[in-house]
Amino acid sequence: MRTSIATVSLSGSLTEKLTAAARAGFDGVEIFENDLLASPLAPREIRARCADLGLGIDLYQPMRDIEALPAGEFARALRRARHKFEVMRGLGADTVLVCSGVSPRAVDDDALAAAQLSRLADLAQDFGIRVAYEALAWGRHVSTYDHAWRIVEAAGHPALGTCLDSFHILSRSRGPEDLDGIGDIPGEKIFFLQLADAPLPGMDVLQWSRHHRCFPGQGGFDVAGLLERVLRTGYGGPLSLEVFNDVVRQAGAGPTAVDARRSLLLLQEETGIEVLPAPAVPTGVAFAELVTRDAEPVTGLLTGLGFARTARHRGKPVDLWERGEARILVNTGPAAPAHPLPHGSGATPADGTALTAIGLESPDPAAAARRAEALLAPVLPRRRAAEDVPLDAVAAPDGTELFLCATDRPRLPDWRADFQDAPGQHPAAPDRPAAFRIDHVALTQPWHRFDEAVLFHRGVLGLDAQESVDVADPYGLLRSRAVTSADGRVRFPLTVGAAPGDDTAQARHIALATDDVVADARRLTRAGGRLLPIPANYYDDLAARFEFADGELETYRDLGILYDRDAHGAFRHCYTHTVGRVFFELVQRDDGYRGYGAANAPVRLAAQHTARWATAG
Amino acid sequence: MRTSIATVSLSGSLTEKLTAAARAGFDGVEIFENDLLASPLAPREIRARCADLGLGIDLYQPMRDIEALPAGEFARALRRARHKFEVMRGLGADTVLVCSGVSPRAVDDDALAAAQLSRLADLAQDFGIRVAYEALAWGRHVSTYDHAWRIVEAAGHPALGTCLDSFHILSRSRGPEDLDGIGDIPGEKIFFLQLADAPLPGMDVLQWSRHHRCFPGQGGFDVAGLLERVLRTGYGGPLSLEVFNDVVRQAGAGPTAVDARRSLLLLQEETGIEVLPAPAVPTGVAFAELVTRDAEPVTGLLTGLGFARTARHRGKPVDLWERGEARILVNTGPAAPAHPLPHGSGATPADGTALTAIGLESPDPAAAARRAEALLAPVLPRRRAAEDVPLDAVAAPDGTELFLCATDRPRLPDWRADFQDAPGQHPAAPDRPAAFRIDHVALTQPWHRFDEAVLFHRGVLGLDAQESVDVADPYGLLRSRAVTSADGRVRFPLTVGAAPGDDTAQARHIALATDDVVADARRLTRAGGRLLPIPANYYDDLAARFEFADGELETYRDLGILYDRDAHGAFRHCYTHTVGRVFFELVQRDDGYRGYGAANAPVRLAAQHTARWATAG
Repeated sequence: MRTSIATVSLSGSLTEKLTAAARAGFDGVEIFENDLLASPLAPREIRARCADLGLGIDLYQPMRDIEALPAGEFARALRRARHKFEVMRGLGADTVLVCSGVSPRAVDDDALAAAQLSRLADLAQDFGIRVAYEALAWGRHVSTYDHAWRIVEAAGHPALGTCLDSFHILSRSRGPEDLDGIGDIPGEKIFFLQLADAPLPGMDVLQWSRHHRCFPGQGGFDVAGLLERVLRTGYGGPLSLEVFNDVVRQAGAGPTAVDARRSLLLLQEETGIEVLPAPAVPTGVAFAELVTRDAEPVTGLLTGLGFARTARHRGKPVDLWERGEARILVNTGPAAPAHPLPHGSGATPADGTALTAIGLESPDPAAAARRAEALLAPVLPRRRAAEDVPLDAVAAPDGTELFLCATDRPRLPDWRADFQDAPGQHPAAPDRPAAFRIDHVALTQPWHRFDEAVLFHRGVLGLDAQESVDVADPYGLLRSRAVTSADGRVRFPLTVGAAPGDDTAQARHIALATDDVVADARRLTRAGGRLLPIPANYYDDLAARFEFADGELETYRDLGILYDRDAHGAFRHCYTHTVGRVFFELVQRDDGYRGYGAANAPVRLAAQHTARWATAG
Repeated sequence: MRTSIATVSLSGSLTEKLTAAARAGFDGVEIFENDLLASPLAPREIRARCADLGLGIDLYQPMRDIEALPAGEFARALRRARHKFEVMRGLGADTVLVCSGVSPRAVDDDALAAAQLSRLADLAQDFGIRVAYEALAWGRHVSTYDHAWRIVEAAGHPALGTCLDSFHILSRSRGPEDLDGIGDIPGEKIFFLQLADAPLPGMDVLQWSRHHRCFPGQGGFDVAGLLERVLRTGYGGPLSLEVFNDVVRQAGAGPTAVDARRSLLLLQEETGIEVLPAPAVPTGVAFAELVTRDAEPVTGLLTGLGFARTARHRGKPVDLWERGEARILVNTGPAAPAHPLPHGSGATPADGTALTAIGLESPDPAAAARRAEALLAPVLPRRRAAEDVPLDAVAAPDGTELFLCATDRPRLPDWRADFQDAPGQHPAAPDRPAAFRIDHVALTQPWHRFDEAVLFHRGVLGLDAQESVDVADPYGLLRSRAVTSADGRVRFPLTVGAAPGDDTAQARHIALATDDVVADARRLTRAGGRLLPIPANYYDDLAARFEFADGELETYRDLGILYDRDAHGAFRHCYTHTVGRVFFELVQRDDGYRGYGAANAPVRLAAQHTARWATAG
């Protein structure tokens, strides 16, 4: 029989995946949509590459949320489908996988599902395409293979069949009798068969206990609620931490013990046993500091981004670059390489530019530093030189220096007092000064310290931790969890690589908020800057998913601007090239949009790998 | 309040853990028994170390399977407890944790549990010790904190109280009302409180699907059974693999594609679609080959183990060392470093001695090679030089060369024909030649290829895969899974480190079966060899757990022999020092004993870390 493999089952770029599949002797592949979107190859080029390799494209996948929808919604889904069929024509693929829907707007109506799948199959037939409908194990209304088959049978359309997937079937099977229904399906109506195995769950409470315990505040238990009840009994013994955890078993004992004690201090504070200095939640990002031996590449980039050098430190080779409320310090001092560079940045001075410090706008820097110290954060020397403004600073778990400071606020020393105006230099783009600021700073973290970092930013700085998100990089899954202030003026997505050795794989980045990302992207390219090229396939997909004004999408495509939308608003963003271990992002955030464009991250990460190799090559 | 941390919550040696806890400002520690057993410090030395560091020992843990037992069993449990109380006297610890039992021999009888815990508390009181009884979430008859408290209350013994553990309580809690019972416990009867958090399970079918799918034959699903049913429908489309897996996402696409195709070939064979050359299951280990630049350290060790150099390769600097049926090739050729060394060994020629090849005694070497080739194993050149005996060989996924060969069998060329007797050299210890042989070869595997390696040995060689076992190394959890022939003449425990970077952390080892491990251990030490020193605490624990003949345990302690017992028989084993990336184990296996001494592995691994540092220092 013919053998195939889904591109999602292999690591790397689409080209690497296709080559590996062909060399191992597979006859064909399933093209996973995200691999197509992230590829710089056009569908016809992918087709040609496959033909050269002797591979057929046996399936294009997945299409989803297309059946049992309200009429308007279904019309939009058909529009998306037509677009995908055009992509498939380019690929020369003749079978598309349609998964049972998960949309809350779908209705539980098999007849409607059958009718709409028939309509889809009509359209597919025009393209010479067959539709294979598969029940996802977690489908909203259709989650079993026999249910999916009943709908396909009811539709009775020659271009509509079913796809069987061993994972979806066996993960829900309680015994062999659950498979009897397969015998009722005529073989010619099974358009495709996907095979995977899986370890049986076995995540019983014993496994949970032995591998996944964590320190209080790093999981989902109400440990404080439990402690309060125990304290009310009059218990006077020790509070003792007992954690069995696969990551902790590998992490250095010293930092883990500090993390553990901090967790316990926060728990004691929460339950009123311990009084700590109250948090002084930062209200903004005063500056980000880059350390570099060779300032030219990064200052060239800053100039292209509309920054101007406005001041220089009185005693050290540190320049202040400003645009609007965004401030970047560029530190080229001989002292710079002696700084302990952040662990998470994976940076050594030899790597060039690294992001090593952040200035946090603090309502009460001294109080914030007292809290940090009480919570075991290493406090850094208050002044670097005798004549400098005393600045409170602490080290985050990843080694990043966090300066607790004030910009232009009464009764608080201004950190800029150490800087002297650069003669003849003034901020450029004075037209929209306040509209330009640091939106977020993405901080890569050491693999072993991710949970600690989240708890640190939450407990020490008083930021809120958002949901953890998995992001697919071509070479492994990354995890990202943002810590933010309530009003969003401080946002640090903390990210971590797929494995311990990956600490160095990802650069850190500074996202700059603008109210006109197109204008700023153009300014940069006019200044000779390069924006990260985004594959055309991504824009073809955007066209299928959203409606744009005339010319809008073309502009995004030309510049490499990515687009996302949530229930609240839209998000437009683009990326500069990477200098050393740092790159910049320009973001235009509609007020309501809350995220960071996570849906676009796989495409962006793949493009960064491509660009890196292009440079390296 | 006083704060403590369990030593199991920190990584490293006991000394590292204590130092880290003290530096982070904890007041005390819980000593986890395995950390004590693995430590070279005697209990009184641990006490002194803690005192120096300003740490109290707030708890000793765990004691288990002591309540609601049949009389004879309880008497043995009390004997064990007395021994532990003596250890605690040495430590100066005054509270012991007793977990609710998991033994199938325990009965569901709260009154008996209370009576026996009272007896235990009587004994504890004589030592000035308090017993804190805790419900494990997976306890056999007692699994909730309120149940444990009812038993403690019924016992009414001043030296018996309860221990509350947030993990065990909250992992079973369905809501805050489940915690109401805490209010019924008087604070002074809560002898201890252990705190941990945990991520909420959330391992729903979606997470299972997106992170843990694997190739057929690598999980627990009956994929072949499903495929058979689909084939009976007349399905004629492709067999396509669709696997979402966190490890695969990081692993090189080329080897993964080969692994995937091999999985599919085996599935096709199992379902009768594809006919492959039948397996020729190896019947024994003909030899193990070590590559080294400096033979002296390893040949010295072999001599001490009773081996003698019996032959030399006609054309290459490869010596055959033999004792009984155990044969080791020592390859010092200039060609040796050019060999591709096994990935899993983490070896480079500069590291010195490495285990790079294994000779498998094959009933039909040519057929075995045909099967391996059909299953995409790289086939190695059949002869190294024109005059050599043609030898079939394939490469395992970790790069180890597997020679399919015959020793002294009619109608098959003997691989030893390429070797000429070393003049005047004959095997030593001719008294028990057959009793000495290679019992098993432990092969460290590259982190990304562990599942592939298991499937390879199972599918290509026809070995059986045993259960996967987690083993606690001081610096992370290792995984080990043995592949074996039915009669146990071929046994390869495949092991993998805690994280991708750890490929190099573990050396490979050859276990030699003897019928008198004591005599062989003595022989080695008389010859000036070193056996791995095992901490005295381990033997004190053995004394509490098993009965030994007079002097037996002292002998084991003197030599560093470890002891284990399963339902079938006993196992005695000891370890040599490590040469390059290889060490040897001497094992005496009672016929029925099936394992590899996994219970002793944490002590052995800790001792190896200690020995390495001792050498390094």
